[in-house]
Amino acid sequence: MSFFSFELDPALAADPVFDLHVRGKMQIAATVPLASRDDLSMAYTPGVARVCEAIAAEPELAADYTWTGNVVAVVTDGSAVLGLGNIGPKAAMPVMEGKAVLFKQFGGVDAVPICLDTQDVEELIAIVKAMAPSFGGINLEDISAPRCFEIERRLDEALDIPVFHDDQHGTAVVVLAALRNAVTLLGRRFADLRIVISGAGAAGVAITKVLIAAGVNGANMIVVDSRGIVHAERGDLNSTKAELAAITNFSGRSGGIQEALIGADVLIGVSGGTIEETALAGMAPGAIIFALANPTPEVLPHIASKYAAIVATGRSDFPNQINNVLAFPGIFRGALDCRATTITEGMKVAAAEAIAEVVSDELRADAIVPSPLDPRVAPAVAAAVARAATRDGVARMPSPDEHTAPIPA
Amino acid sequence: MSFFSFELDPALAADPVFDLHVRGKMQIAATVPLASRDDLSMAYTPGVARVCEAIAAEPELAADYTWTGNVVAVVTDGSAVLGLGNIGPKAAMPVMEGKAVLFKQFGGVDAVPICLDTQDVEELIAIVKAMAPSFGGINLEDISAPRCFEIERRLDEALDIPVFHDDQHGTAVVVLAALRNAVTLLGRRFADLRIVISGAGAAGVAITKVLIAAGVNGANMIVVDSRGIVHAERGDLNSTKAELAAITNFSGRSGGIQEALIGADVLIGVSGGTIEETALAGMAPGAIIFALANPTPEVLPHIASKYAAIVATGRSDFPNQINNVLAFPGIFRGALDCRATTITEGMKVAAAEAIAEVVSDELRADAIVPSPLDPRVAPAVAAAVARAATRDGVARMPSPDEHTAPIPA
Repeated sequence: MSFFSFELDPALAADPVFDLHVRGKMQIAATVPLASRDDLSMAYTPGVARVCEAIAAEPELAADYTWTGNVVAVVTDGSAVLGLGNIGPKAAMPVMEGKAVLFKQFGGVDAVPICLDTQDVEELIAIVKAMAPSFGGINLEDISAPRCFEIERRLDEALDIPVFHDDQHGTAVVVLAALRNAVTLLGRRFADLRIVISGAGAAGVAITKVLIAAGVNGANMIVVDSRGIVHAERGDLNSTKAELAAITNFSGRSGGIQEALIGADVLIGVSGGTIEETALAGMAPGAIIFALANPTPEVLPHIASKYAAIVATGRSDFPNQINNVLAFPGIFRGALDCRATTITEGMKVAAAEAIAEVVSDELRADAIVPSPLDPRVAPAVAAAVARAATRDGVARMPSPDEHTAPIPA
Repeated sequence: MSFFSFELDPALAADPVFDLHVRGKMQIAATVPLASRDDLSMAYTPGVARVCEAIAAEPELAADYTWTGNVVAVVTDGSAVLGLGNIGPKAAMPVMEGKAVLFKQFGGVDAVPICLDTQDVEELIAIVKAMAPSFGGINLEDISAPRCFEIERRLDEALDIPVFHDDQHGTAVVVLAALRNAVTLLGRRFADLRIVISGAGAAGVAITKVLIAAGVNGANMIVVDSRGIVHAERGDLNSTKAELAAITNFSGRSGGIQEALIGADVLIGVSGGTIEETALAGMAPGAIIFALANPTPEVLPHIASKYAAIVATGRSDFPNQINNVLAFPGIFRGALDCRATTITEGMKVAAAEAIAEVVSDELRADAIVPSPLDPRVAPAVAAAVARAATRDGVARMPSPDEHTAPIPA
């Protein structure tokens, strides 16, 4: 008999990616012996009852004496998966498993993928709140904008563990790291940059906010969505975009991406669309272009480099890969290590600085960020995040001198 | 600095059970390589998108190409944990982790502990329904009666994966297995047995039903709760107990445990209370006593054996340990292997027969059930359960010839 319940299309069956995915990409492993009656009486009844009673008397002990102190839920509703859109919870699982194993590989963080069969904001919030005692942190993933903003905000307010929407903040942190190094390399100053962000979804909004927090002048930033430049006079803005309009584009520029890019120093593409070469031609000399749509960048590097001194994409087969894996394992490692109650803007900026710092002595135009495989990144990010958490008053434990990342599986 | 956020009572710190529990008892492990850029592009973006698209087109593929085909959620609300009562979700976690690692150790089943911070029946049902796409089965655990009955019934109706409240059915299956072997050893017949069940909670109700399904005459069964014998004339019965009254005790006997035991052949204690020796004295000669309360049996074996030919408890330090671990790993292994949509009464009876059969050639009065560590049990149970699922028309795949349990961690 076959293991498979369903016959795969022969074209797909020939694809090695499907071979790799048979039975999924992860498993549970016990960390205690279970070979003898004595083992069972310690790990399970009757011994386990004493640990339960101790936690019932002092709930803080749960983080010490269960796996919850090291485990993060990777939660999605399948509404905005990669560039694939609203494919639902079952089809989202391969991505969430991938995320979970990256958490472990790079951060020593145990992560459990939870794909939820509801896209109702109130239900999602209620479910994650109810699940929270089982986890040390919540990583929201691939939840569509603008729902993701309210879900994250309300969960963060309600829970005493970190809540982090990676599509927003993971991307923003790595973009900030890359931009710091690009600016250093080109001898520019953050405050002077004229930045255009193409895309006003989860990533675009978070990038805008973190760049302003990091010293970019919002007055000179322009955000462009599918209907053109975001400005206060547009009648079609939801509350998130109205907020963007209030903190960017003070001159009230209007038009499309072509108009937005005139004189711009930096283009950050997080739209999934295509940007024509003619639009790039209007950018200022020595520009910086991050074309981050996956798998197809808004503009390919060989075109972008005609108009820019530094080019980055989200892809592993081009230089300067801006990949969230540089951020999320270390951010959660650091947050868990100091039992942070939330992830502050200061912790995000600290994470970006740590990522940038790793390659600061070896900067080149084609090497502004570390490789996603660089083993120095997660421990550096974890340490910086835990220090920032302590500084921001959200750590429940002293910042450790040594971080446990990565723990080999 | 210390790893611990909270200083443990020194008396507890000296207890080796607490040492064992530091950082919990389980972890996540990747089953795919993640060492190179190529590895990442297969397990994560961009390669993973092709698997997502295939599942979006054909949701059945999720069980083949994600870990969901082998993963069970161990779900509790912390309302009835061991004998500790309503200790809540955080304090329940050590038990749920223990359960999860036993699933893996004995059944090769990956299991994720989910402790929920709500005890509202409607919320619990909605949450588990929403989480279901992430799992191949739901093991409900330590949810108080009578709430557990409705929660299980409605989830089983709503979901196309197995839902199994182990406190009910795991216990009932092992009790049935033990009783089969005890009856064989004593040369009795199921149909003739006069059985008293002390306790009308989750386990008591399920044991009553499975014994009747297995051929015991309900007319001669008596269930006793904290207020005495359950009979139709009592005015204080909830719907579950009213159902018990309708299927047992046809002679309408009333009184307490002392009255119930007069002439009884079998006593099954699942109450947590104490049963006085004077009550046992009324039982029929050559009786069978299962005193299953943990950690303190309703009656200790050296007392019980004065009145019974065969005595069993739930404890590992006495002979004849009736332990759910004989049932749940193999039951879910079998159900997952054939992608069963539910767990039928026939599958439970088949599991009990398989457990009993493992030691049928070596039966002794102090060895009516296999050891919880017996490696023959889970594969035998899995095979029997999958065959029964096929027979009952609830298997989505042919019953496999070989079961994968146990997969070493």
